[in-house]
Amino acid sequence: MILVLRSPQLLPAVIEVSTRLGLSYRVSSSQNGEQFLEINSDGSPLSPAFIGTELGAFGQVLGLQSKTPLLDRLPNDFSVSVSVPGAEPVIFQRWSQNPVWIAGPCSLDNAEMLRKNAAVLQGLGVRVLRGGAIKPRTSPHDYQGVGREGFRWLADIAHEFQMAAVSEALSEDDVEAALEYLDIVQVGARNMQNFALLKKLGLGQKPILLKRAPGATLLEWASAAEYILASGNSRVILCERGVRGLERELRYTLDLAGVAWMQTRFALPIVVDPSHATGTKQILGACAAAALALPAAGIMLETHPHPVEARSDALQALDMAEFAALTAKVSK
Amino acid sequence: MILVLRSPQLLPAVIEVSTRLGLSYRVSSSQNGEQFLEINSDGSPLSPAFIGTELGAFGQVLGLQSKTPLLDRLPNDFSVSVSVPGAEPVIFQRWSQNPVWIAGPCSLDNAEMLRKNAAVLQGLGVRVLRGGAIKPRTSPHDYQGVGREGFRWLADIAHEFQMAAVSEALSEDDVEAALEYLDIVQVGARNMQNFALLKKLGLGQKPILLKRAPGATLLEWASAAEYILASGNSRVILCERGVRGLERELRYTLDLAGVAWMQTRFALPIVVDPSHATGTKQILGACAAAALALPAAGIMLETHPHPVEARSDALQALDMAEFAALTAKVSK
Amino acid sequence: MILVLRSPQLLPAVIEVSTRLGLSYRVSSSQNGEQFLEINSDGSPLSPAFIGTELGAFGQVLGLQSKTPLLDRLPNDFSVSVSVPGAEPVIFQRWSQNPVWIAGPCSLDNAEMLRKNAAVLQGLGVRVLRGGAIKPRTSPHDYQGVGREGFRWLADIAHEFQMAAVSEALSEDDVEAALEYLDIVQVGARNMQNFALLKKLGLGQKPILLKRAPGATLLEWASAAEYILASGNSRVILCERGVRGLERELRYTLDLAGVAWMQTRFALPIVVDPSHATGTKQILGACAAAALALPAAGIMLETHPHPVEARSDALQALDMAEFAALTAKVSK
Amino acid sequence: MILVLRSPQLLPAVIEVSTRLGLSYRVSSSQNGEQFLEINSDGSPLSPAFIGTELGAFGQVLGLQSKTPLLDRLPNDFSVSVSVPGAEPVIFQRWSQNPVWIAGPCSLDNAEMLRKNAAVLQGLGVRVLRGGAIKPRTSPHDYQGVGREGFRWLADIAHEFQMAAVSEALSEDDVEAALEYLDIVQVGARNMQNFALLKKLGLGQKPILLKRAPGATLLEWASAAEYILASGNSRVILCERGVRGLERELRYTLDLAGVAWMQTRFALPIVVDPSHATGTKQILGACAAAALALPAAGIMLETHPHPVEARSDALQALDMAEFAALTAKVSK
Repeated sequence: MILVLRSPQLLPAVIEVSTRLGLSYRVSSSQNGEQFLEINSDGSPLSPAFIGTELGAFGQVLGLQSKTPLLDRLPNDFSVSVSVPGAEPVIFQRWSQNPVWIAGPCSLDNAEMLRKNAAVLQGLGVRVLRGGAIKPRTSPHDYQGVGREGFRWLADIAHEFQMAAVSEALSEDDVEAALEYLDIVQVGARNMQNFALLKKLGLGQKPILLKRAPGATLLEWASAAEYILASGNSRVILCERGVRGLERELRYTLDLAGVAWMQTRFALPIVVDPSHATGTKQILGACAAAALALPAAGIMLETHPHPVEARSDALQALDMAEFAALTAKVSK
Repeated sequence: MILVLRSPQLLPAVIEVSTRLGLSYRVSSSQNGEQFLEINSDGSPLSPAFIGTELGAFGQVLGLQSKTPLLDRLPNDFSVSVSVPGAEPVIFQRWSQNPVWIAGPCSLDNAEMLRKNAAVLQGLGVRVLRGGAIKPRTSPHDYQGVGREGFRWLADIAHEFQMAAVSEALSEDDVEAALEYLDIVQVGARNMQNFALLKKLGLGQKPILLKRAPGATLLEWASAAEYILASGNSRVILCERGVRGLERELRYTLDLAGVAWMQTRFALPIVVDPSHATGTKQILGACAAAALALPAAGIMLETHPHPVEARSDALQALDMAEFAALTAKVSK
Repeated sequence: MILVLRSPQLLPAVIEVSTRLGLSYRVSSSQNGEQFLEINSDGSPLSPAFIGTELGAFGQVLGLQSKTPLLDRLPNDFSVSVSVPGAEPVIFQRWSQNPVWIAGPCSLDNAEMLRKNAAVLQGLGVRVLRGGAIKPRTSPHDYQGVGREGFRWLADIAHEFQMAAVSEALSEDDVEAALEYLDIVQVGARNMQNFALLKKLGLGQKPILLKRAPGATLLEWASAAEYILASGNSRVILCERGVRGLERELRYTLDLAGVAWMQTRFALPIVVDPSHATGTKQILGACAAAALALPAAGIMLETHPHPVEARSDALQALDMAEFAALTAKVSK
Repeated sequence: MILVLRSPQLLPAVIEVSTRLGLSYRVSSSQNGEQFLEINSDGSPLSPAFIGTELGAFGQVLGLQSKTPLLDRLPNDFSVSVSVPGAEPVIFQRWSQNPVWIAGPCSLDNAEMLRKNAAVLQGLGVRVLRGGAIKPRTSPHDYQGVGREGFRWLADIAHEFQMAAVSEALSEDDVEAALEYLDIVQVGARNMQNFALLKKLGLGQKPILLKRAPGATLLEWASAAEYILASGNSRVILCERGVRGLERELRYTLDLAGVAWMQTRFALPIVVDPSHATGTKQILGACAAAALALPAAGIMLETHPHPVEARSDALQALDMAEFAALTAKVSK
């Protein structure tokens, strides 16, 4: 966005307003003395229209536009409410005073294990039960999950313990069953820009948990959410799970500053998943505490009654005692 | 992979063999004087089984495994042959003496434009005509393409000029039409890990052009190809189109050393797409020349008779004169 | 590190111990049935010697080594105490209950401005006054700072308000004056691997604030600190200021999970600088709160009485009212 | 840079000129119908002044500036000539028809080994002998090199074989000796932004080989060169040696497209170092061939008569037979 100043005398006033609004800008002069400001409105937490209105009195505002008009129109107090049979709904909100804990095993192995897990998690205040029915594995030779019937099974156990159920739909063919049984449908990091899947999920009205792809910029992530809104469903919860960067000692780089920026720019709630981002048990508590201090809308963690028996991601899952200790410590 | 030496006296001989094989290794000693080598067999261009055989005489080899057993079994002289009605087949081969040129517009705008484009491209030695029927756009509000019927239309024009046709399938629902009409089906960078799409495409026998996701490691890219092979189709051509990194002046970082490494490790042919990787016309010729010097299996470029009229990626497309100049210069 | 098991029957016990210690490992079998574990001891928060002792009973431990033996030997309750003339010393400690606030302008412009700034900062609980005397500017044509005499001037004003003074030494020729006047000498991100500078600073006994280079891995950062210790000075405070990654909307990617991992692996205190990491005022409070929740040893922020008049980094500096609001909010 | 159009009718002509010049731009309209183009002149291969002249006829050009005015003023046919006692000078030129080969061991171990190495290299057409006298090692506990006296020793042997000598100065204290004995002084990747070192080297007139830092953008690299020019020395040769990115299988990501872009934007010659970039012998030949196809100004490789005996980087060094085979293959 560019503001061409009506008069050079207005510059101090414009700088004052821009600084107050927290806009980054660059002041330049043309060769004939005219002054203008280049304002990075793409990167600003304010809507372009609002900036245009605030600065329009000082001169001519050029180049208003946004790639995410539907996200921009969400109200500031936007929240996603997930209904749970026979229980209070679960509310996801941007800067949350009551962050939502999402926990459960990486993959669904058997109902008995999951029920034991769920009973403990309920006692620790977890409101959403996660579990992978269909697993997106990098290699076709790794364990691929129990399949679509797991959606129903997960939901039944979740509801038994007054929790909502979340699981991932990998294929367009999974959408119907996912929308029928699950309370929240997850789009995995690898499918963040699978636009066919996003469009089909947007035709339903179930909340969607959209994970960030490890190679996606913040605005690409927002644009993927915009696809779901453009199909008619605005009930989107974002999930940060680490980006590709310098990491050698950790799996990915957890981008908490990126979450903070997204929260100032868009109204969608964002949960943080330290398990996948770091793959390192020792720091999950510190990362969860940091995310809740932003504050984020919630935390997503992998738990398992007996991590070493789990069929995937065994060593990053917390056992029940570890998870209890973590929630106790973070809640302090 | 770990080699525990039968005797410390064997160390010089083992180092000689390992060095000859080009293996990177780390020699360590245990506290009681036993010596062993850690060999990075995941990263080696040789198959783990071969390394095991070569080094087994010196001691005990531990930890053989591979995430890509089907890729590992491809013959060294593997090639992908694409048949073209009424013309010689187009052959994609790893270190190619006859690299394949793939060119055409980013998106299909109208048949007349495409036919004009195709006639010139044929004269310049291009054997594969590209054109996006369904466009994977970051924003839902950008132009989305002419749709699936474009597959047929593209193929008809390509065949008219003795060329093969390549276009992208974005959805599982596109697969049937894509396999029917196209000569090569492209999987875009955003769908590289859309495993449902890969599996469905692998059930057909049409060659697949698999683009690398900008956030994917080399082995994740190989594992995505392994999915297609695991479904029954080994006719995979890889395409490097830039990864996310430090780039500020260019769109992505073109990873030619990564292509070179993949070529030593896997038998699949790899083509290079400098247009999407750099988004910068001035250096397309230099990048194409560099890729052909590896040598790569081919080059993919965006061309358009009137770039400024194109409905997407207008400014990175070469016009016909620019493309002719580039091919002339690179061929020298 | 590799553990070759004395007997396969020991595997469950070893897994239990390893899991308890939080070690990541890979179990493999040799072709004759022998079992072993590869343990990533480089990446472990425990010292290799400790792991060797704990696991040695189960078999043979191979490959102990560390690139940072001096850091490994620091006591768990290590802290860096900075003495301040006529006031309580400032204590930097790893997981701090009393985090240190470091604030002040990016560059020293004039003494009057700095004194005004310092008076307010003291009232807000800031214990360390920062200010760039010699500025490391990417371009030689940008403002380069007031020069070495600024060290004395900064220290005088800091001490007047019972604060310690920190500023950056850019050249080996700056070291003598820096060690004489400053209470903490900063090594900037661009000089993190300027080993000549590190060695010379290590010959003194003043605390060193070592910023992470934007392209450095966590272990490269630790190894840079090891250089200072190897010269004889263990009073090192680390400072995270963002790494190069996917960021487009923010300046760098703030690596808080990396800080958490470093804290579990090394005893050095780490402060976090959200100003340089993000360059974005709106999220400084959220990032500071997140860092303090880890908890980090302190926060470093740019402040200026009149940001728009500052000669460098004007728009990311907080004015006094903004800084007061931030500390009030974060302290809650 | 912004061009405010004098009249909307001029748009087609402006687009034609801009497209011909290869400029990327964005056309926008103000709310009252005025049209303007934003042109990324920072990222353009043309000098801002030239663009201003070419487009000034169409309207008002705003915001001309450059961070590298001295680099911008270098003539298009700029070259760096290195004199060698009793032999033809070595010429480094941007798009070189006669690329310079630089080879030799990572670190100077002993004179005998180096002389043997040099004799063979001379026979293979190598004109510059490299060897590390003082080694920049990530860990203070690794081998640090023979020290400054190695500069003289390296130069004597190089001159004996009609070659120029290049070695790295790590400290400001190394500069005097380096400028006295060496023919080319190298600034290592870790010191690319050690501005004190750059300024001191710029006071001499010896050619400087400036390696790119693995975390530096292209314009940061250019700005580091600008520091040397600003001190009075324009004899700068750049060297690409890999950037930090997605690489897992290779050491760094070799940025050949970045080299191509720098060549269009600046007149400085650029050599490419595949040894450090990839650390992988098998692909050095392919990477060298790709670099020479750009074409680059030269290739820098590590060689050693007996790589396994080398005291650093042993396994990435080529032995003499391997180097001979590589040059023969690449020259074809």
